[in-house]
This record gives sequence, structure tokens and C-alpha cells, in this order.
Amino acid sequence: MIFESAAFDGHEQVVFASDRDSGLRAVIAVHDTTLGPALGGCRLRAYAGEAEAVTDVLRLARGMTCKAALAGVPFGGGKMVVLAEPAAKTPALLRAVGRAIDRLGGRYITGEDVGTTVEDMAEIGAETRWVMGRPESAGGGGDPSPSTALGCFVGIEAAVRRALGRNSLAGVRVAVQGLGAVGFRLCRLLHEAGAALVVSDVDPERVARCRDALGAVTVEPEAILEQEAEVLAPCALGAVVDGATAERLRVRIVAGAANNQLASPEDGRILARRGILYAPDYVINAGGMIRLSGELTGDDAAASERKVRAIAGTLEQLFGLAEAEGLAPSDAADRLACERISAAAARGTRGR
Amino acid sequence: MIFESAAFDGHEQVVFASDRDSGLRAVIAVHDTTLGPALGGCRLRAYAGEAEAVTDVLRLARGMTCKAALAGVPFGGGKMVVLAEPAAKTPALLRAVGRAIDRLGGRYITGEDVGTTVEDMAEIGAETRWVMGRPESAGGGGDPSPSTALGCFVGIEAAVRRALGRNSLAGVRVAVQGLGAVGFRLCRLLHEAGAALVVSDVDPERVARCRDALGAVTVEPEAILEQEAEVLAPCALGAVVDGATAERLRVRIVAGAANNQLASPEDGRILARRGILYAPDYVINAGGMIRLSGELTGDDAAASERKVRAIAGTLEQLFGLAEAEGLAPSDAADRLACERISAAAARGTRGR
Repeated sequence: MIFESAAFDGHEQVVFASDRDSGLRAVIAVHDTTLGPALGGCRLRAYAGEAEAVTDVLRLARGMTCKAALAGVPFGGGKMVVLAEPAAKTPALLRAVGRAIDRLGGRYITGEDVGTTVEDMAEIGAETRWVMGRPESAGGGGDPSPSTALGCFVGIEAAVRRALGRNSLAGVRVAVQGLGAVGFRLCRLLHEAGAALVVSDVDPERVARCRDALGAVTVEPEAILEQEAEVLAPCALGAVVDGATAERLRVRIVAGAANNQLASPEDGRILARRGILYAPDYVINAGGMIRLSGELTGDDAAASERKVRAIAGTLEQLFGLAEAEGLAPSDAADRLACERISAAAARGTRGR
Repeated sequence: MIFESAAFDGHEQVVFASDRDSGLRAVIAVHDTTLGPALGGCRLRAYAGEAEAVTDVLRLARGMTCKAALAGVPFGGGKMVVLAEPAAKTPALLRAVGRAIDRLGGRYITGEDVGTTVEDMAEIGAETRWVMGRPESAGGGGDPSPSTALGCFVGIEAAVRRALGRNSLAGVRVAVQGLGAVGFRLCRLLHEAGAALVVSDVDPERVARCRDALGAVTVEPEAILEQEAEVLAPCALGAVVDGATAERLRVRIVAGAANNQLASPEDGRILARRGILYAPDYVINAGGMIRLSGELTGDDAAASERKVRAIAGTLEQLFGLAEAEGLAPSDAADRLACERISAAAARGTRGR
């Protein structure tokens, strides 16, 4: 159920969309439009069941509200999940996704996510204009991964300044979990800044590329969380920090691009107690969303880059707030996001 | 859950809407818009839980699709349920209902239903133009009950012609369950046509009025289904005909205004086996919907009345189809509705 779900948090609209001809079954969650239309990617996955999909979309949409609020972009939070095997991703299915989005009249704006590509956004975009991240050839802003990687990089710099008092990454040891589009680009930026890389990925080819191109030390996927390093940068799955790992990590900083890095809010507090500085995931990984939302607000590349680099300043503000209030940075982020939304609501800018 | 619900039937959109300030929790189901925007009332009830509300809205929305298709109006089927205690029905809540409807951009058009009034429609209408049945003073078509009663009356006439070979209701004994806005009006029409009335209601005042004004014989609510009569006209709750009552009714015809009179499709087949002619509920009770949809299509009172009286012809067609195909009339109605929608879809008139 929705209203009775533990993940329900007053979401304005949760829309179950289906289409007989294409077989589409999808859920769109619009969490909060106080700051603007709800922005969030379209995830396509063979969920174990509807309950799992609902929990996912509710949590992710809420996260997008906080993410947009702290990124300072004029958007709210939303998300879409398509319940489908990857092999079922036909043009007809993507067109039905587009129609389902179009029916919300711009209250939800989609983008790529796990299981969808920029090319898929072009197909979806044939049915609705409420889509970001189409290929540059189709008039979109293209791949947002470089912006996510850049935001993560400046976020790691900010965390290193705060926790280690160092203004350079030269010689700083960073363990990077996951070498996909974002993880590999982040590694390159870290390498260029003089950091020492320890990396892992489930794909041996990605690992080899990182070793050969950037001189990274490589370890097996199950060993990456055991590494002794200054920084752990999770750039793969969510829930990397859970009750077990939070107590075991041998790093000073957790700062990476993965979504939902904490299995629960309590895990953020464990990190804080252990003196490990955590850069809240939805703050440090907002670069891609900032770039994509620039398509809608008309930002050019330079304006987007300025906003992405401002992630460093937001993290510094959060780290300061967390220390002043005795909060974990993850809790400080949630509080700051809520405050920004409440302030906007009080000013009467609530969306329709 | 939705897609996994037994009541799910490819509904195009199922929207969970919530509003923090007013406390609104509602579900809007848009079943099928092949023939036009989804029409269906807004029900307000203190449901036992979300699952019950979802089952209700899914079933009712699907029923509206069939109802509109067989009534020949250019609309699809939808429904809205508001999960609230009647005492919680404040202007602020109704305004939030209106905003939730407005967000669907006209794909769903609401009207009064159990727990809402024509005055409520005026309040809802302050936030959206997608509302039928506002008071005449507010530019609406007013109370649709007389049209529902008229449709039901001509439907009983048609059933009596078919099952009893009689062209008049004079002397025909009709047991009417439920004397609300529709039931009482139906009794008056039946009385004027010379029928003999046996009536019941949980409200003693309503019973007394019917006895005094129309000379009706009155029985206790629990006795009405035991009456020996030509016609039983259920005009109160749904699921009056279930596994137990279907075998016990002592009538030749079941024809009334209540929604969802059959507890299950099988009960319609039991009636057919027993030689009891059943006028499918959503066909015979479509008068109100025809009147309300006339507000949207610009029908005047005379045009509406012609369409309402055409219910008799639709029933005759259904009774003929049922006999020719060896179907229960309830199954024949479902088949005819599906055929009309499929034909429209094949003509490419599917809505957006």
C-alpha cells in the first residue's frame, strides 16, 4: 500500500500507470513541488514485486526533493520506476513511458537512471517534452555523468579540507567502489589531482582500464570496504554503509557518488561517533541533476559548472552546521533541506 | 498493492493524492479513456484501510467505463475515493480534492457520490473545472437523482415487457429496497404507473413517507429480499445478490438503481439459471450519469431525457443478446461494453 507504507512521507502524488498495448507497468512518485516541478530519473528494473518497486520510488522521490533543495535548483523531487525486465525495454514501452509522464502535465520531469539511457530519453521525448538528458544530437544536454563526477570530486576536496586539514589531494589515498560512467571519471580527476587510487568493480575490464590508465591499485569487490585509506568513495550500489560496515570502515571520510549510501539514518550517526566524516550522498552527487536541470532553466555549460562546483560550499556549510548542532552531517542535510522547503512554502511559492 | 490487486484491470492511471495542510488522502482511478475523459463520482468514506479503498476505487472505475460505453456517452470510466471520516469533510479538504483532480488536467471528471453532495461539488469546483453536478445556482445541472430514477423506471418497464409480456406496470408488485433520493423518486413513478409497492429502508421516516404518500406496504429491512413479487428493485447497498440470496429470491425480475448489485459475476449466472431476469445495474442506473455528462456535452433537459429513456432500448438489446448467446445479461453487458471500446480503439479514437 501507499499511504500505509513506511516509505510514505506525504508524497503529493503517486501514480500507477499502465498501458495494455505495450505492457507498461510503472509508478511515478511526485514527492514535493514546493520549490518547483518534480525532477527525478526513470529507473527500469525487474523488481521482485510491486511492494519493492513502491518502496524504491517513494524513497528515491523523497531523496530528490532534498537533493534539489540543497542543490539550489528551482525543482522538487520525483522519481519513476518501470517494472520490467531489461529485455522488455522496447520503443513501444518507452513511448508508453513518455505518454504516462505527459499525462502529469509537467509536474514530473524525467531523466535517465538505472536501466535507462540517454537514447531512451530521446524515445520518451517523442511523446512528452518533460524529459531531461536527451542526447546532444536530439537537443538535450547529453550525458550528465561528467557533472556528477566533478561534483563528487570537489566534494571530496571539501571533505579532505575539513577532516584532514589538507588543501590538496596529492598523496591522499582514495578507495573507489564502482568504476562505471561516474566512478571512472571521478578516478581520473582524483588521479590528475595526485591522489593514490585503490579501486574495485564487478567488471574486470573496468578494473583493468583503471589500473592501466590511472595506475590504480586494484582489489576484489569484497575487499574494497576493508581498505585502509583517507577516503572511501562509494560509486556503485546503495546501502554500502550498514550496521556491520559502519563499525568496520578504516577510513577518515566517506564521500562518493552512489545513491542511498546509508542503509538507515542511524548508520550516519555511527560514522559521526567514530569520527568518520560523511558527505551526504544526495548533496555530493547532485552534479548530474544540476547539469540536467540547467537544460530546463537555460543554463549554459559554464553556468552549470559554477553551480556544480558550489557543491563544495554547500558541504562546508553542512559540516559546520553538523558540528555546531551536534548532528551527523546526514541529519544536518535533511534538516537544511526541510528548512529551505518550509521557508519557500511560507513565502507562498508552493507549486500546483 | 495496485497492479497485483485482484480488482486491477489494466487501469490507465491510479493516482494516490495527499495534501499535508488539509490532511487529504485520496485515490483517483482512471480506468479507460478510449471513449473520452474518465467520468465518475467522488466517494468519501472512513474506509477500514487503504486496501479496501483501493479495491473499491478500482472496481467502481471499471464499472464506470462499462456504464459510459453502454449509455452511449463520449466518456470513459473513473472514480475517486477520499479516505476520511464524514466529520473531516471541511472546505479545506474539498479544495484539496479539487486541486488533486485539477492536476490530472481533465483526464478525470468528478461528480457527487456516497458521502459527497452537490454543494461539495461547488466547493471542489472552486479549484477545478473538471466537475459535474454542481448546484443549478452555481451553473451546474443540479441533482441527478431524478434522472437515475427515470432510467430505472423505464428499465423496469422494459424488463416487465420482456419477462412478463406485460406492457403496463398496473398491478405489478415491486419490492423496493432503499428509499433515498433515487429510491423514493422511483417509488413515485412506479406508483403513478399503477404498481403495487412493498418497501423497506433502515430509516423509519423514509418508510413512513413512502407508506403515507404512496400507499406502499412496508416491511423490515431484513425482510425485503424475502418478498414474493414480480420485481425486486435494489436501490440501497451493493452486493445484494450473493451466493445465498441468489438462490432464495422469490421474484421474476431484479432491476434497481443500486451499484454493484451482484457480489460476483457468478451470481448473475445463478439468477439466469433460475429464470430471474436481471437488468445489469450499470445499464439501468446510468440515468444520473447521462444527465451529468450532458452538462459537459451541452445537452439540454429534453436531450438528456431522451438519452435516459433510451436505457430501455439498450436493455432490450442486451436481453436479446443474452438469449441469443446463452449468456447471463450481466455477462452480455460486459461483452457489449468491451466490444464498443475495442471498436473505438481500433478506429484510433483512444484518448490521451
